Amino acid sequence: MPHPEPLLLELFAIFVWAKVSGEIFEQLGLPAVVGEILAGVALGPYALRFVTPSSTTFSIAQLGAIFLLFTVGLETSPDELIRVGRTSLRVSVAGVLAPFVLGFAYLRWLRGDATHEAIFVAAAMVATSVGIAARVMGDLRVLHTQVARIILAAAVADDILGMIVLAVVAGLASTAGVQWLQLGVLFVEAVAFTLFMVFLGSRVIRKMRPGVERLSSENAPLTLALALCLGFSVAAERIGMAAIIGAFFAGLAFAEYSVEWKLTPRVGAINEFLAPFFFFTMGSRLDLRVFEPKVIVACVVVTALALIAKVVGCGLPVLRQGWLSALEVGVGMTPRGEVALIVALVGLQTKIMSPAAYAIVVFMTAATTLIAPPVLRYLFKKETQQLATTT
Amino acid sequence: MPHPEPLLLELFAIFVWAKVSGEIFEQLGLPAVVGEILAGVALGPYALRFVTPSSTTFSIAQLGAIFLLFTVGLETSPDELIRVGRTSLRVSVAGVLAPFVLGFAYLRWLRGDATHEAIFVAAAMVATSVGIAARVMGDLRVLHTQVARIILAAAVADDILGMIVLAVVAGLASTAGVQWLQLGVLFVEAVAFTLFMVFLGSRVIRKMRPGVERLSSENAPLTLALALCLGFSVAAERIGMAAIIGAFFAGLAFAEYSVEWKLTPRVGAINEFLAPFFFFTMGSRLDLRVFEPKVIVACVVVTALALIAKVVGCGLPVLRQGWLSALEVGVGMTPRGEVALIVALVGLQTKIMSPAAYAIVVFMTAATTLIAPPVLRYLFKKETQQLATTT
Repeated sequence: MPHPEPLLLELFAIFVWAKVSGEIFEQLGLPAVVGEILAGVALGPYALRFVTPSSTTFSIAQLGAIFLLFTVGLETSPDELIRVGRTSLRVSVAGVLAPFVLGFAYLRWLRGDATHEAIFVAAAMVATSVGIAARVMGDLRVLHTQVARIILAAAVADDILGMIVLAVVAGLASTAGVQWLQLGVLFVEAVAFTLFMVFLGSRVIRKMRPGVERLSSENAPLTLALALCLGFSVAAERIGMAAIIGAFFAGLAFAEYSVEWKLTPRVGAINEFLAPFFFFTMGSRLDLRVFEPKVIVACVVVTALALIAKVVGCGLPVLRQGWLSALEVGVGMTPRGEVALIVALVGLQTKIMSPAAYAIVVFMTAATTLIAPPVLRYLFKKETQQLATTT
Repeated sequence: MPHPEPLLLELFAIFVWAKVSGEIFEQLGLPAVVGEILAGVALGPYALRFVTPSSTTFSIAQLGAIFLLFTVGLETSPDELIRVGRTSLRVSVAGVLAPFVLGFAYLRWLRGDATHEAIFVAAAMVATSVGIAARVMGDLRVLHTQVARIILAAAVADDILGMIVLAVVAGLASTAGVQWLQLGVLFVEAVAFTLFMVFLGSRVIRKMRPGVERLSSENAPLTLALALCLGFSVAAERIGMAAIIGAFFAGLAFAEYSVEWKLTPRVGAINEFLAPFFFFTMGSRLDLRVFEPKVIVACVVVTALALIAKVVGCGLPVLRQGWLSALEVGVGMTPRGEVALIVALVGLQTKIMSPAAYAIVVFMTAATTLIAPPVLRYLFKKETQQLATTT
């Protein structure tokens, strides 16, 4: 400790650069997340070499991903999910299938990628980022509209479907070839875990509630939440799923009590501290040398498919509500985020995905996140004008 | 990620065991901190070998120490410190000198330890734990009394003096012999840093305030606080002090705004998550094999000296207020905590302290923390009874 500790300096540099870059993006009306990722790309070992994250930082980034998904879970009410109409479920299922099929078809058959790699990239195209969608609509003050409610519910259902896809895909990563029986077992496990956590998780917490409130520490609920967040992450990994899936469902189990136990601001603070390390290191893993013409084409095509698949897949089920509403829902579902990045991370770590495929996913994530907000803003303004003209 | 990740399992195990053990201690009316340390001793590599913390966990524990001291700083108002009467300052100075002199004299001349080692152990005997004292008096609902105010103000001043002692001692660790010139420079640096942070830190934040509140992120104040916490930790290390000193002063600078910017509960949550790793790993470093008769005697003597020095040193300056009040102040100042442990950690890491000396400090910390609360409870009850009889 008396000598300068490189770890602290590294953490300080990453935190400040990620946050400053995120703030600059916010000031430009762009999502902060993209700024944090690009800070990692620019300052990381493949570009300016200003910061090369150490293995400890990668571990802290992993914790960041876990708390990120725990926070998303905390903000998702399972009751509301169950109550959500068939519309959102249809939007969500179509919005998961369309990008997966389109992405896989392009990568496997047109580009000739390996089956596993194509499955991973296609899986990364699946999940909408609830955070980005909610943020943009919150800024536009349209969160109360029916379209916004459909988008948010569908994005959440989508996250859960994305989790199942990730569980299956992560299972795939641990087998040598495609072993259909094992894959089937994993699928059943993932679905069972999901159903258990959505329907029973919060009931278990409800049962534990009197006990928790009898404990002497005033922070007992927070402590329990943190312990179960780590515990379910470990459990999810043990049954062959990704740790973040467990964290997400742990959050879901506590969602009902997040207000009463003041969990949201406090877990949010942990997230505020750890998440920048996740986004920065994700960017820092991007090897800029892979961007040869062929890969750039693939980046653009995959991004285009990711956009078209969501707009069409999610828009069609709500076409009855008018083409403008359908477009709004479709565009609102396009931004990808943390789940896409984590799928890419698993792919890269298990060497199923090449650095080029990783670059395609990061590019697609950043591009969809950047494109969706301004288009959504334009559509919602157009709708307001239409309403003003008709009345 | 598809394979079980040992780090997550390790973090989960440490977090749960530390918290469960802390809760059991609380239920028995004992300080939770001691439970967390003993969990580390019992389950660590020198006893049951249930968990052997990895280097990543030690890094997370170091972050835990930084946030621990950041939280202490946040809860310390520099204005109130400046306003604090001479009484508290006298209590604090006497309470720092007495244990240092007694401890050093015993270890260097009676036990014949090396000079550096004796200085380190003596330095660890200096700082009162604000947290433990505040907690016990809070439980007794006597925080409003004059005695409580003297204790808290003195404990905080004591922390700052402890920081200066640690800064000088840490500087000592990085030089081959005792180089008095360098030590003098360090002492001046430490005092200057302290004065700057106490008198100017919060003014700088005040100047930054309009800028911070204009930033788009609603979490901007928290982000700034976290960035400066890391930044001052790095800065403190750069000038040869311990990282936690920077973190403590960063907290001090934000103390004025901790309510308005809701920093306390949110930084507290990060602390709640990270601190158990600090206390657990501190316990896990304790090599139980060092407890041979000679060391056990030293443990008991050092603990006794640590108690007597504080009771006499802190009690004498307030003897005019009656012997009961003087005793209360003296006993209230006896519990040692995080600062003592960090001094020991620096000593162990730089190999200036032997495992036996480390064990003596951990023993002294746990023992003083365990002994003070019941005695303080007894004294305050006695005072209430006396008041009831006289009126």
